[in-house]
Amino acid sequence: MPIDPTAVVPVLFAAGREEALRPLLVQLVVIVLAARAGAAVARWLRQPSVVGEIVAGLLLGPSAFGAWFPDLFAAVFRGGDASAGGSLEVSLTSFSQVGLILLLFLIGIEFDFSHVRRQGRLAAGISLAGIAAPFALGYALALAMTPRLDALGAAGSIDSRSFALFLGTAMSITAIPILGRILIEMGMQHTPLGATVVAAAACDDVVGWTLLAAVSALAAGNFEAGRIVGMIAATLGFAAVCLFVVRPLLLPLLERSVRDDDLGHAGPRLPLGILSLVLALLFVAAWITSQIGIFAIFGGFLLGASLSGVPKVREALAAHLADFVTVFFLPIFFTFTGLRTTIGSLGTPEAAAWCVAVFAVAVLGKWGGCGLAARLGGMPAGEASCVGVFMNTRALMELIVINVGMDLGVIPPAVYCMLVLMAIGTTLMATPLAARMLRGSQYEPTLVARGFLRA
Amino acid sequence: MPIDPTAVVPVLFAAGREEALRPLLVQLVVIVLAARAGAAVARWLRQPSVVGEIVAGLLLGPSAFGAWFPDLFAAVFRGGDASAGGSLEVSLTSFSQVGLILLLFLIGIEFDFSHVRRQGRLAAGISLAGIAAPFALGYALALAMTPRLDALGAAGSIDSRSFALFLGTAMSITAIPILGRILIEMGMQHTPLGATVVAAAACDDVVGWTLLAAVSALAAGNFEAGRIVGMIAATLGFAAVCLFVVRPLLLPLLERSVRDDDLGHAGPRLPLGILSLVLALLFVAAWITSQIGIFAIFGGFLLGASLSGVPKVREALAAHLADFVTVFFLPIFFTFTGLRTTIGSLGTPEAAAWCVAVFAVAVLGKWGGCGLAARLGGMPAGEASCVGVFMNTRALMELIVINVGMDLGVIPPAVYCMLVLMAIGTTLMATPLAARMLRGSQYEPTLVARGFLRA
Repeated sequence: MPIDPTAVVPVLFAAGREEALRPLLVQLVVIVLAARAGAAVARWLRQPSVVGEIVAGLLLGPSAFGAWFPDLFAAVFRGGDASAGGSLEVSLTSFSQVGLILLLFLIGIEFDFSHVRRQGRLAAGISLAGIAAPFALGYALALAMTPRLDALGAAGSIDSRSFALFLGTAMSITAIPILGRILIEMGMQHTPLGATVVAAAACDDVVGWTLLAAVSALAAGNFEAGRIVGMIAATLGFAAVCLFVVRPLLLPLLERSVRDDDLGHAGPRLPLGILSLVLALLFVAAWITSQIGIFAIFGGFLLGASLSGVPKVREALAAHLADFVTVFFLPIFFTFTGLRTTIGSLGTPEAAAWCVAVFAVAVLGKWGGCGLAARLGGMPAGEASCVGVFMNTRALMELIVINVGMDLGVIPPAVYCMLVLMAIGTTLMATPLAARMLRGSQYEPTLVARGFLRA
Repeated sequence: MPIDPTAVVPVLFAAGREEALRPLLVQLVVIVLAARAGAAVARWLRQPSVVGEIVAGLLLGPSAFGAWFPDLFAAVFRGGDASAGGSLEVSLTSFSQVGLILLLFLIGIEFDFSHVRRQGRLAAGISLAGIAAPFALGYALALAMTPRLDALGAAGSIDSRSFALFLGTAMSITAIPILGRILIEMGMQHTPLGATVVAAAACDDVVGWTLLAAVSALAAGNFEAGRIVGMIAATLGFAAVCLFVVRPLLLPLLERSVRDDDLGHAGPRLPLGILSLVLALLFVAAWITSQIGIFAIFGGFLLGASLSGVPKVREALAAHLADFVTVFFLPIFFTFTGLRTTIGSLGTPEAAAWCVAVFAVAVLGKWGGCGLAARLGGMPAGEASCVGVFMNTRALMELIVINVGMDLGVIPPAVYCMLVLMAIGTTLMATPLAARMLRGSQYEPTLVARGFLRA
């Protein structure tokens, strides 16, 4: 029985495909250029380029571009044609989602468990304090905010436990990839301080993702014990499959397949068949965790982490994917985040006050918690405080977490906006503050040489 | 005046984003794996892998997958949920379109004008005959078919001139990238025969794209002289800008920016800022040609061609983009094409007869025309015929052209299907027939050594 394809996939046969493409092209041009301009400005200000990209996405949103050029904004992001309507946004959303799965896969591969093992007790103490303190403070803040969520733009009723758990988790995030980049730029990645920070951040990363998965399960499972136990069991089972089945089967295959430098000097590469296999597995993993109920991005991260630890494989996969993800998919995600962020939602004095509170709690919990733990662990006060500032970096990871919260429906738009600003603020303050705190320390000459401190 | 973002981009705030993502993931898994499996089978049959990928896309369409497993087919490509409806197909369409623009850009960069210059009169003669003969035959066939287009499933009335011009163009296509790959696999790329074929195919390429642009302009401009002159002037103007403004400004910048082998051995790479700039320009170029009225893909090709000729730049851009385009975007395009192709539309004896006629005209025009020109140019009969068979390869290029025709609305679904089968058939016959024709020639030992001929 042949199927009528025009009934199954009518849009393939619709006229005007080319017309529908044009607004998407305009969006892509704007997004790609804005991200790179933001990155350039950030580098010029001696900030990690990703902060610039995040801010660029924010500026493309309703609070800047939308407020200053409302007609142009509507034309670009609505595509001018109301009848094309939803389809354009669907394209952008799909690109953003697929890109995020690829990104989390790459982040997973980069993950270096050896840091966690090597650095022992001090890092563990810092990490633990750096999660417990902001989580507790965030949880408490959320309870205080709950009665006022209506005033902060919550559409329906938001479960207060979900909100509190989520805000606690959002406060405990540390952005290890960005932190790594900052440390490299400051020339500190191999110093004792740098190694401790990276190890602690790596711990945070594992705990943070686990927390987020648990909170997702709790919120999506609606706190029904049976469903939640099922989701947690399924997640653990899938992680076990990744680690004990996929890794032993796939990693040696990848390692054998990496071809160094054929085709002249193309660098470490995988054959296309293997690359396809990895991509397909990645989408399968994303589908599985999404089906479990804890978001597709976890599948990307889990598969990536289960392939981590072999530099050759990591380099080859990064060579194939990282640049395109960075210049194409990631800016789309940042714009997507920016479009969701309305600074206008902080227009009331109350909302502004809550925003300050969110920022204060985030900084106090992370900086205070980690700094105190480092000091108690025997570090000099300046360096201990510096550890706190570094750990306070949230950047990209926080955005991913907040978007999960938004999709779960456990935070209202105004809180989403506060957390975006918090993510940017905590990242922006890291480099200049850390440099200042290290004046007079053994690290001063390097920082002066690299222009982070005046001589 | 702040804008209400939920009004501009409501889907970003819609619940169930994650649910909408899942069917897309399933599609991507199926598409990526099917393409690679098709490629593997093709390689095993000593055919270029792209033929396998095209056939895989066809098998995923309504004629195979859809006919054999109708429920599963509908579930995969409709996403199960009727309410999610159009959005899923929009994602797939957008991925396919963006991927095609990237592909045409890469094809443009690969273009080697020096072949055309070096090979002189013989190649020019072959190329000209290889366009004139199939174009004339295709045009005549179209005129014969026109009265029967209703019976072939044309929805509205199709302009007979547009149809005839388009069919003529579709017959004259030669697929230079695939042809290049076939010649390399047979070890013939540097032989006099191989060089002549590549040069002739390169000529064909330029003329073919120009023809397609002209036909697009004619059809889209509805044969209004004013509009068409405008479109042609705009296209020439844009091509001139690419060649005389973009190329002199951008190419030296790219050449200077290529970094060989930093980061250990990452191969020739461009800084991310430059890569972003190229991507943005690519989308701008696509937007411009789309706005002119001759399809976004031309913009990709024109920008690519205007950056061609510098191996270092070509390698760097390919290193960044080619693999991901091949394993991710290209299979989506093939599936997109497959979904549009209904072999069932050839169910009547009349349609089947037209299909045979299309195939015969395509082969006769190209093989006959090129073979004759080569023989008259002084080649031995066997080699001349071999040139014809090689030039008859259509593959990927033909699919791109047919999709343009479908989007222009100048061909009915049944003719679309005939042309897809013709593209696959002419490509499949190339390698085995060419090898057989070269038995007894100076090329026999190489072909035997590579397993294309039995000793």
